[in-house]
Amino acid sequence: MTDAPVYDKVALIGLGLIASSMFWATRRAGLARVVSGYARSGETRETARRIGLCHEVCDTLEEAVADADLVVLAVPVGVMGAVAMAMAPYLKPGATVTDVGSVKRRVIEDVTPHIPEGVHFVPGHPLAGTEHSGPESGFSALFENRWCLLVPPESTDPAAVARLRRYWEGMGALVEEMDPDHHDLVLAVTSHTPHLIAYTMVGVADDLRRVTDSEVIKYSAAGFRDFTRIAASDPTMWRDVFLTNKDATLEILGRFTEELFALQRAIRTGDGDALHAYFTRTRAIRRGIIEAGQDTEAPDFGRVKVER
Amino acid sequence: MTDAPVYDKVALIGLGLIASSMFWATRRAGLARVVSGYARSGETRETARRIGLCHEVCDTLEEAVADADLVVLAVPVGVMGAVAMAMAPYLKPGATVTDVGSVKRRVIEDVTPHIPEGVHFVPGHPLAGTEHSGPESGFSALFENRWCLLVPPESTDPAAVARLRRYWEGMGALVEEMDPDHHDLVLAVTSHTPHLIAYTMVGVADDLRRVTDSEVIKYSAAGFRDFTRIAASDPTMWRDVFLTNKDATLEILGRFTEELFALQRAIRTGDGDALHAYFTRTRAIRRGIIEAGQDTEAPDFGRVKVER
Repeated sequence: MTDAPVYDKVALIGLGLIASSMFWATRRAGLARVVSGYARSGETRETARRIGLCHEVCDTLEEAVADADLVVLAVPVGVMGAVAMAMAPYLKPGATVTDVGSVKRRVIEDVTPHIPEGVHFVPGHPLAGTEHSGPESGFSALFENRWCLLVPPESTDPAAVARLRRYWEGMGALVEEMDPDHHDLVLAVTSHTPHLIAYTMVGVADDLRRVTDSEVIKYSAAGFRDFTRIAASDPTMWRDVFLTNKDATLEILGRFTEELFALQRAIRTGDGDALHAYFTRTRAIRRGIIEAGQDTEAPDFGRVKVER
Repeated sequence: MTDAPVYDKVALIGLGLIASSMFWATRRAGLARVVSGYARSGETRETARRIGLCHEVCDTLEEAVADADLVVLAVPVGVMGAVAMAMAPYLKPGATVTDVGSVKRRVIEDVTPHIPEGVHFVPGHPLAGTEHSGPESGFSALFENRWCLLVPPESTDPAAVARLRRYWEGMGALVEEMDPDHHDLVLAVTSHTPHLIAYTMVGVADDLRRVTDSEVIKYSAAGFRDFTRIAASDPTMWRDVFLTNKDATLEILGRFTEELFALQRAIRTGDGDALHAYFTRTRAIRRGIIEAGQDTEAPDFGRVKVER
């Protein structure tokens, strides 16, 4: 289905999983006449050219953002401010700048000072991804039926927000607006703390001398392998997430360890009723996620073919 | 592919996910002439009859195990001993008893005293499962390319072990022998601790007043939903696992919290290099699991269709 373009020119800054998926989704739905792309690494730019990612891959930020109606910052959260500063002189008056960072308060603080008068800044965050990264990992369906949260400051031009919303909806996303601090807390629960815990569990398994790595790998199907998927995510992106959403992550981690200690104590004292009650309660959340269309009901995420 | 039957009659005691999958896999490969089934709950027996699970569903343990060449204990770890005691008088001389419990030391301690002279006890554990449970959740491919660990005591008749191995291989499993204590430690790492952590994280999210359940559910695709799958597993089974593999689970939990505190400190002090190094190391384990054929390389466990 091809709609009228939402933007004449879109510039994607950073060509990883999110930006490359945005290109394929934009092209598929005809949401922009032209999409330019820029990546700091020459190797990434070369790969992008080879696979036909973006209508034009530019060697400089200046070329990429020139005349762009929408500029998307798709770089790690820790460098958003520096990239915004570097591209600011070349932004077209009336253009919109957005980002796809997993943390919003810090990105707003770092990027806003560099946005020129007459340019709209509408921070955003598509809640979509896989454990793969880089320019070759993108695909057009990544945002389908996934939420994209926009966190515009109150003073933002409503027309610029509405247009960006239309763009994300054109890529298949469900769009909601949210306050940046609440965003950072919600994501600390649904994403940042789970990632840290998965990284930790995989690290522990790797470290343990009494269980070999090959045993951990061979016998991973009993639960552990789900953690390894999450713990295979991009290290730079995640380092920046934890450094820039420090307070919310540490708060949720504190709640997590408190709860873990309570369950640990129930195990130590043999309190089977407490364990059973806890494990029963958590089943309901899974049911909610499946009913909300945010995961498959198929066993094991549909990894296996179910036949009698 | 139908081989010669490995056993004339197999009795499945407990008709949940594992036993029902064993029936479909046994029937598909022609591994037994007849499979009888027994469950304590009348409702489960009725469901089994309705869906054609087992050649005969029996109303008593006595009928089910009568003349069986292989009896499979597929009940929660906490009741293995009681079931073994109840069925002992009816076991055929020369028969083999096995189990599918996730903990081995305790099952051996609880079951062995009830095994009559002339009956072989070969404890086992197929490392396979899904988040679903009950008689309707089984399917014939559950064990394909999954490991099944057998932990026979040294004095066990090698012919009985070899036959059970052939049976599991006929259902598609890869079989290995292991010492029970080592089994319990390996599983504490690859399964029991990950499950407890997933249960905890989902419980924390459910509890948090400042983030609503509907937010947790809507925005789960960013990582959290992988935890909810594990935390939807059968509560009774998992209560028993933690109560009966207490020492190994508490040991690994101790290592986990130690490591988590180190990462938490790196976040608090802003030590980006430590975080990046940690997150890079854990990627390699994922690669190993994929190369070992124990998970799919497709992004997001293959949940999405990848197209440009």
